[in-house]
Amino acid sequence: MEPPKAIDVDTKYFSNISHRERAIFEGGISMGALFHQFIGTPVSIKNAETLEKSMEKSLELQPCINRVIVKINKEKLEELNSSFDYVSLSGDMLNVTIISEFKGILAQVRMQYQEDLKYPLMYIEQITD
Amino acid sequence: MEPPKAIDVDTKYFSNISHRERAIFEGGISMGALFHQFIGTPVSIKNAETLEKSMEKSLELQPCINRVIVKINKEKLEELNSSFDYVSLSGDMLNVTIISEFKGILAQVRMQYQEDLKYPLMYIEQITD
Amino acid sequence: MEPPKAIDVDTKYFSNISHRERAIFEGGISMGALFHQFIGTPVSIKNAETLEKSMEKSLELQPCINRVIVKINKEKLEELNSSFDYVSLSGDMLNVTIISEFKGILAQVRMQYQEDLKYPLMYIEQITD
Amino acid sequence: MEPPKAIDVDTKYFSNISHRERAIFEGGISMGALFHQFIGTPVSIKNAETLEKSMEKSLELQPCINRVIVKINKEKLEELNSSFDYVSLSGDMLNVTIISEFKGILAQVRMQYQEDLKYPLMYIEQITD
Repeated sequence: MEPPKAIDVDTKYFSNISHRERAIFEGGISMGALFHQFIGTPVSIKNAETLEKSMEKSLELQPCINRVIVKINKEKLEELNSSFDYVSLSGDMLNVTIISEFKGILAQVRMQYQEDLKYPLMYIEQITD
Repeated sequence: MEPPKAIDVDTKYFSNISHRERAIFEGGISMGALFHQFIGTPVSIKNAETLEKSMEKSLELQPCINRVIVKINKEKLEELNSSFDYVSLSGDMLNVTIISEFKGILAQVRMQYQEDLKYPLMYIEQITD
Repeated sequence: MEPPKAIDVDTKYFSNISHRERAIFEGGISMGALFHQFIGTPVSIKNAETLEKSMEKSLELQPCINRVIVKINKEKLEELNSSFDYVSLSGDMLNVTIISEFKGILAQVRMQYQEDLKYPLMYIEQITD
Repeated sequence: MEPPKAIDVDTKYFSNISHRERAIFEGGISMGALFHQFIGTPVSIKNAETLEKSMEKSLELQPCINRVIVKINKEKLEELNSSFDYVSLSGDMLNVTIISEFKGILAQVRMQYQEDLKYPLMYIEQITD
């Protein structure tokens, strides 16, 4: 038996929100997911690029996600002076852009560590009117 | 030095979206966060309630989150017949409601495993007009 | 059909290591599991005790684990001055003791952040001869 | 100031266990870490190889870990018939080998889902005498 099509899911579960709200919702889910899935992963200069790519490709599978760009701060990794040459991935090293789309509406969701807030803030950087 | 107040953050980062969109965004982030933080946690009938409470209290710390209600399917846990009397928490055991609020707009975000979709669907169950 | 008993699992999979080695192995697994499952969880003074209890109860389900004691550093949480009154749980806040046991051999595995190493070191604090 | 060298850490924290026990301990930690860090990650045929590589490279950073080989079951991924063409990574899809080493002692730690146990069993597949 074939599973329900995405179009039926939209009608059944998402008819109470606008297309713009849907793009925002899916972008928010994926940003929260990315952070809490990968924070804690062992990282150094050696595996940073592989990890970035892997975070991008896994989150791009989620509904309405067009593109994910992950930048891990390499300067922070180079400054590290731990006895074991790697650290656990933390929010202050991450700079992430997620492009979500629903029926032509594009939302660019961003996560960037804000030094003044001491917080990895997630917000909508750009969105189609 | 005092960190910036929440009101300044709203003005600086969120003036491009409506109050309703903000409630939806924050609810989406927290639902994605909850799923990807806790999936995989060892669980059985013995610790299910403690784990539910802990998931609720941690996600209620996030911005604009009023209330989180987590239900882990106890019947599924009782049916388990593994050799080690516990399993890894998975999406098909979870039923979660998150109430987010921004300036009087309330969004009720829901995650529930849909057997027909074979997928833990996240959607907006109710929202203030 | 009944699943295989633990005793058969021991014979089939663990006859190549000593009882002491088994206690060390299971303690190591559970310490690695605890760290990577819960790092990143939103935490503040408000939910720290609930989170500690939940970490303990979930890891105590794992094979050969007698007791888990988790201490989250409350002083660090009180010093926090972020704009959102909570942080992501990180290794420098954690102090964990896991007691594993196999056939009367007890291992006390410890994780404690070492300031000189800048690293949350995991080691065997005590073990039966 | 230089952080302490690994050799001092060994003397200070690990002189109460044998070289073989140390290899077993570090292999166990890394297997528990791998499972609980990555379970829940969105996965399909499209990103399975990138994810495998990323899991390998991150865990190879951990102390005493020589080599990590991760195989995600591609047949299970192809059988999937969800409405969204991907799933959350779960223990029954994983087959992992970790080679840990301490001073010439090699331990081959394995995790493989055991259908009869309904459990992703972690054990020592081979070890130097």
